[in-house]
Amino acid sequence: MAAERILITGAGGFVGQALVRALAGTRPVIATDRTGLDFADLPSVTALPGEIDDPALVAALTAEPLAAIIHLATIPGGAAEADPALAARINVAAPMALIDAATAHGNTPRLLFASSIAVFGDPLPPHVDDLTPARPMLRYGAHKAMIEEWIATLTRRGAVRGLSLRLPGIIARPLAPSGMKSAFLSNLFHALKAREPITLPVSADATCWLLSRRALVAQLVTALDLTEDPATARLNLPALHIRMGELVAEVARQTGADAALAAYAPDPAIEAAFGAQPPLSTPAADALGLTHDGTLANLVAHALADL
Amino acid sequence: MAAERILITGAGGFVGQALVRALAGTRPVIATDRTGLDFADLPSVTALPGEIDDPALVAALTAEPLAAIIHLATIPGGAAEADPALAARINVAAPMALIDAATAHGNTPRLLFASSIAVFGDPLPPHVDDLTPARPMLRYGAHKAMIEEWIATLTRRGAVRGLSLRLPGIIARPLAPSGMKSAFLSNLFHALKAREPITLPVSADATCWLLSRRALVAQLVTALDLTEDPATARLNLPALHIRMGELVAEVARQTGADAALAAYAPDPAIEAAFGAQPPLSTPAADALGLTHDGTLANLVAHALADL
Repeated sequence: MAAERILITGAGGFVGQALVRALAGTRPVIATDRTGLDFADLPSVTALPGEIDDPALVAALTAEPLAAIIHLATIPGGAAEADPALAARINVAAPMALIDAATAHGNTPRLLFASSIAVFGDPLPPHVDDLTPARPMLRYGAHKAMIEEWIATLTRRGAVRGLSLRLPGIIARPLAPSGMKSAFLSNLFHALKAREPITLPVSADATCWLLSRRALVAQLVTALDLTEDPATARLNLPALHIRMGELVAEVARQTGADAALAAYAPDPAIEAAFGAQPPLSTPAADALGLTHDGTLANLVAHALADL
Repeated sequence: MAAERILITGAGGFVGQALVRALAGTRPVIATDRTGLDFADLPSVTALPGEIDDPALVAALTAEPLAAIIHLATIPGGAAEADPALAARINVAAPMALIDAATAHGNTPRLLFASSIAVFGDPLPPHVDDLTPARPMLRYGAHKAMIEEWIATLTRRGAVRGLSLRLPGIIARPLAPSGMKSAFLSNLFHALKAREPITLPVSADATCWLLSRRALVAQLVTALDLTEDPATARLNLPALHIRMGELVAEVARQTGADAALAAYAPDPAIEAAFGAQPPLSTPAADALGLTHDGTLANLVAHALADL
């Protein structure tokens, strides 16, 4: 049983909580986060709260061999810009130390790393595909690209079976401040559902790559058991390419709200970073059976189900 | 005068000592290293010894604005494999913290980062040029590739004017244990000069990219004042492509030793990592005026002059 155990970091977050619940019952899960570990109803889940850069926590998390690690813990975009030293510690030093500790047993754990489309930076080229090079502009994106490089090296060395998955915008997150500059994408859902006005910092023609939590969790669960080509160390996840005006209209339709509650006041920096995402091709992920929400209507329905 | 000051880390090392002497007198130099700072004869050099991951040292090094930083400090190949935690701290966390501290003054310092051909890993493709992707196998090489990514990001952001220079084998280093798996390249010079036998862990047909300290320091001094295209964030340095048997013959000729003092006992791992380097093209560096030793005879003469 021990060799089946899966460690999930960032398990108290929006994605982590759903991922723990999706995997609990199928195998033993060790869940860690600085907060939010509410899994008392799940006997197969061991909750070990703490700071992921605390050596004592890392030692406890890796005391027994792990079959897999899904590393979600991170300091996201805006929060990383606000505290560069903390972000470097949590986003770069911590995963390096965690992986070294986890591989000290000599087995070769599966390692899924939640990277981000932030590795592409801005401006983006007219089309993004599996060969588009990383060119981050945010500290967060650079940290993700650095750990991708580290995991690719450890995979070549045979220490882990690593796969870095670049996450697009995940909707709809809770309304609480998340440190994410892309929070407006989720806040739209909360506003229209509550019949409240919202001013979006992008234009109606802004285009974004979006994925629901449900579809992301399904991709992570699938990726856990993939035996892809070891050279495939980095994957862009399938996501829908959505125009902001169409998203507003569909959220309004499904919530019964007036689409006019959403106003557009484009901030050039936000539009460039989060609202100018071109068509996306993900042939490598497609070939592995990873899939997005399918349709805008599904995406919005899945996102509203999380509110 | 303050805006002219140059910080050199790893200044007590084989390359650092020569670089400090090459720059001293032209502008104020702050030299730091954990040991080896013997610059009392140079009034323009301020020696600040310490561990580069010590926040108090970093604060002292960056208390005044810096015009440039040449970051040489590193835990090299073999030593990094022996102490992964130390290597991650010195090779990854320390330069990130140092650069953040140095850029807090709001100026845009020139930043030269001593990267390594270790970013290419092994086996190498049949030819290496400016477009060959990084694919490290050593921890050291991965650390270098990660900081290259970080410096490229900070350069895009306008925080530094960064340039990562990938160093080939630098000869001839002192005989002392250096933590470098490629030490045999330097040890050859010491052995033949002393008329002592040496067993090389590669074959006579092994091929290596080599550069003398003198030629490397000249490239670093030139690079300091380059105003290259900001997109040129990483450069392979020009180096001679030398066959081991030819190197042995030339060192024997110039030292008057018997070439038969050198025996070959190839270690497959060493041969793969350091003795299978294919032809190298460096058009980007060539266009910027960076040059290697020119001839094998020059390379060996320059190397012997350092012994």
